[in-house]
Amino acid sequence: MPSFSDRLAEAVREKGPLCVGIDPRWESLPKSIREDELVHVMDGDARKAIASKQFAMRVLELVYPYAGVIKPQAAFFELFGWWGVVMMKAVLDAARAMEFVTILDAKRGDIASTAAAYADAAFSTMNADSLTINPYLGRDAVEPFLTAAKAADRGVFVLVRTSNPGAGLFQNLVCDGKPLYRHVAAEVVKWNEPTIGASGLGDVGAVVGATHPRELAELREAMPNVWLLVPGYGAQGATAADVKAAYRADGLGAVVNSSRGVTFPFHPDDPDWEAKITEAARKASEELR
Amino acid sequence: MPSFSDRLAEAVREKGPLCVGIDPRWESLPKSIREDELVHVMDGDARKAIASKQFAMRVLELVYPYAGVIKPQAAFFELFGWWGVVMMKAVLDAARAMEFVTILDAKRGDIASTAAAYADAAFSTMNADSLTINPYLGRDAVEPFLTAAKAADRGVFVLVRTSNPGAGLFQNLVCDGKPLYRHVAAEVVKWNEPTIGASGLGDVGAVVGATHPRELAELREAMPNVWLLVPGYGAQGATAADVKAAYRADGLGAVVNSSRGVTFPFHPDDPDWEAKITEAARKASEELR
Repeated sequence: MPSFSDRLAEAVREKGPLCVGIDPRWESLPKSIREDELVHVMDGDARKAIASKQFAMRVLELVYPYAGVIKPQAAFFELFGWWGVVMMKAVLDAARAMEFVTILDAKRGDIASTAAAYADAAFSTMNADSLTINPYLGRDAVEPFLTAAKAADRGVFVLVRTSNPGAGLFQNLVCDGKPLYRHVAAEVVKWNEPTIGASGLGDVGAVVGATHPRELAELREAMPNVWLLVPGYGAQGATAADVKAAYRADGLGAVVNSSRGVTFPFHPDDPDWEAKITEAARKASEELR
Repeated sequence: MPSFSDRLAEAVREKGPLCVGIDPRWESLPKSIREDELVHVMDGDARKAIASKQFAMRVLELVYPYAGVIKPQAAFFELFGWWGVVMMKAVLDAARAMEFVTILDAKRGDIASTAAAYADAAFSTMNADSLTINPYLGRDAVEPFLTAAKAADRGVFVLVRTSNPGAGLFQNLVCDGKPLYRHVAAEVVKWNEPTIGASGLGDVGAVVGATHPRELAELREAMPNVWLLVPGYGAQGATAADVKAAYRADGLGAVVNSSRGVTFPFHPDDPDWEAKITEAARKASEELR
């Protein structure tokens, strides 16, 4: 089996850098799905979880020509309890069967055997190709994820500089002459080094928001062989021009996520929601290529 | 309903500061539970999840006289997929019915509506009294948890200085003249301030490991009205003397977690495992009071 980074490179070469974020929000789902017969006979968490899955499955089909990578957001499934977990697994399995590269966005972080359990939950129980992780707990919070990823040909994306307005509160604090996010980036480079594959990139990626283009450029340079997962494009305000700095000269090195922008460009009552998703995915894909 | 901090104060006044961590590890479970008839007819995740629940339920009964607070570790349930989530909820519900204060140790951290979804998953779907959260993403990663906690009389514990050997990699970096963990602590003080209740403590707590006693004393002083959740006692090496610095003069202000030390003081083949848990809980409770 090719390494995670080589599979990701193949996906980006084939379909471009667009990553579609799957954040099914009950109140935003198309009315036609919320009131579908199969959905409507259930209630509570079951109804919401099933509707979320139906929607996510349809999104996978619609964006298939335009994106090689999808990123389900664990929180929006966990919200529906065990029903949500069943449906999250169904979506991840379907995406793998369609040969999407999957990123489970769960931002896990814990130590030793607990981190190993989270890694197993993501790579084995959920069968995701990769997982987002939080570095705050330090090296022993990252190593079990790296070990598990290596054993199963999977990848991780470490939070480095996030896209939210308040991200700088801690990430931009200057420590020993450089911001905290640069210290995290320097560790990511070390963790990634032994995993570099045929594509020239490795299995330990970094999350770097597009909402601060100067920092994005700085971090691209600081982590030349590291895949960047770039949120912030689309609904969060960053443009295709803002994310250009994320790509390497060979056109690889970044996947650019859009969640709401691609998956919710419609009002819940709109009967043309499928055409609107197709059009939003096509447009995003074209802008980013 | 009394505030989270006042309920926690009541629990600690009644039973002392011991918090029992529920980390059910399949390979460590008593053989008599792994081979119980009800458990044995199932297989795979179902078998492991049911065994974990049976064990956790028995632990709750055994430690009841000695601990007022329990802390299930989400990773060890998520590992068993949806079956694990069903059982995690069963354990949390049982603990609440027994009037334990519950801390769901999931170390969540995300932004905006995603953080709000995690908060709902913890406080509503799982009905936990409190949740551990990771501050790396900054203020907008914490505020949705604070808002949800306030609305439902729940609490959070923000990771400040963790107990693991590699915690210092980022947490001890010196930024603007003080370590990163002190910057996080200063924010926790601000977030906690508006929530201070009758006990003189608030609903926004901090995770501070017992494995660095000097830093524990420093952080107790820096966050006088903040509940500390103190891991590291017992199996991780810190002693009752090491954790003394966590208590305020009024005897409140800290809950001290022991997971393996209290719940796994036996070999899986040992028929006397229940007596050993009782004795370990009694001893830990006595040492910590």
